Amino acid sequence: MEKLYVIKIGGNIVDNESALSSFLDSFAALSERKILVHGGGKVATRLAEELKLPQQLIDGRRITDAETLKVVTMVYAGLINKTIVAALQSKGANAIGLTGADGNAILAHKRNHATIDYGFAGDVDKVNAPMISGLLEQGLNIVFAPITHNNHGQLLNTNADTIAQELAKGLSEKYEVNLIYSFEKEGVLADASDETTVIRTIDPETYLSLKTANAIFAGMIPKLDNAFAALKSGVTKVIIGKAERLNDLINGNAGTTITDAA
Amino acid sequence: MEKLYVIKIGGNIVDNESALSSFLDSFAALSERKILVHGGGKVATRLAEELKLPQQLIDGRRITDAETLKVVTMVYAGLINKTIVAALQSKGANAIGLTGADGNAILAHKRNHATIDYGFAGDVDKVNAPMISGLLEQGLNIVFAPITHNNHGQLLNTNADTIAQELAKGLSEKYEVNLIYSFEKEGVLADASDETTVIRTIDPETYLSLKTANAIFAGMIPKLDNAFAALKSGVTKVIIGKAERLNDLINGNAGTTITDAA
Repeated sequence: MEKLYVIKIGGNIVDNESALSSFLDSFAALSERKILVHGGGKVATRLAEELKLPQQLIDGRRITDAETLKVVTMVYAGLINKTIVAALQSKGANAIGLTGADGNAILAHKRNHATIDYGFAGDVDKVNAPMISGLLEQGLNIVFAPITHNNHGQLLNTNADTIAQELAKGLSEKYEVNLIYSFEKEGVLADASDETTVIRTIDPETYLSLKTANAIFAGMIPKLDNAFAALKSGVTKVIIGKAERLNDLINGNAGTTITDAA
Repeated sequence: MEKLYVIKIGGNIVDNESALSSFLDSFAALSERKILVHGGGKVATRLAEELKLPQQLIDGRRITDAETLKVVTMVYAGLINKTIVAALQSKGANAIGLTGADGNAILAHKRNHATIDYGFAGDVDKVNAPMISGLLEQGLNIVFAPITHNNHGQLLNTNADTIAQELAKGLSEKYEVNLIYSFEKEGVLADASDETTVIRTIDPETYLSLKTANAIFAGMIPKLDNAFAALKSGVTKVIIGKAERLNDLINGNAGTTITDAA
């Protein structure tokens, strides 16, 4: 099978011009088929502030009322997505920016939660693998903004980590998918304050013992749960690490590799 | 040759929820290959006001400084483009929203004007016909936001009428292109205040006499100049008329048809 990289970059990278540019240089230079998924929450929060729209986040998830949906659609699908696409074009990578509504790429439904009304937040139902691989086969590098739709005309704000995971899973029948969560840290750290304490490999057994010992930063747990779920669904490899070291992450010289092997 | 519709909708339609929905119903129902080009200046102007960014327009062209470029990228490529794409999905048309940066669809350069600095305004150099027809052949209906790029990482604000015209010209080697400028009026009017005075056909000779007699609203002249230029470059037909009457425009039962025949 052909190799496909699905690479998520976190909001702190999107917000840091030099880190983003350095990451995009490495991304553009990758010769394999590839998909980039970006966040952009900090930029959205700043625009919401300028527009005097109070924002509420619960466990890092944004409560998305109608006005906030407009803000995230403008920032994620407009400003950040097109800035990245234009930057990739200038670096020689033919990129195309999409939301889940485009080409019906990612279908979702409005989150239904027992106690919290998340507003226009989407949970993913289905990835349109034939359409997406059609674009990849046309030589296009896809850049996804974390916005989906419900096929009834409603756009939905959707977690970028989840989008990366669902894309990786949905495309794993056709490609050997490497899923990379890249952000501002070197990887999963044994000591959150020390970047030299990267845990190089985590398998289900070490994960359990790390969790039991409270030796993992709480913010990493959803990422790791997602990673193991992706491996179970056919994704070949999951790597977590620093965005500016993309080549080292790919070559196994940096970051944390999540493996299914016991 | 296969038929292709390139349809521009004006800012007043984008801004009118019921007119837009009615137009999108007809657009979605068209069985031929099709491209929609939208503006959205009024929405951008309102956001700029909320953000206290003074806007300057010269002959309807927006002076696009760096902050205004962010606003139009957010509004055109984000909010309006994705709202239209999601609406088309709900109406059964598989749509994909693009700017000129996506897939390197439309290459432009920063406008170089002798006396006016338009800022980040783009003039079109080249339409990527193979990429665009690749998407059309995949069964996708393309929705273009009026933003282009210069292949050096710079996004550029670009007139939507011009984008429609350049797409129509650039795709006329492969398709029999019908270019439709749809807006809030019934067509080119002999009396600008009377919607029943539509001039049904304009050829170069009648155009000259209408201009000589000052019998055309000044705002229509760039549209008509563009229309004749498009016909000269291989476009089959140009029609100007009311967005909500798309079917009548296509069937020749409404609007103004511009023809090259003397």
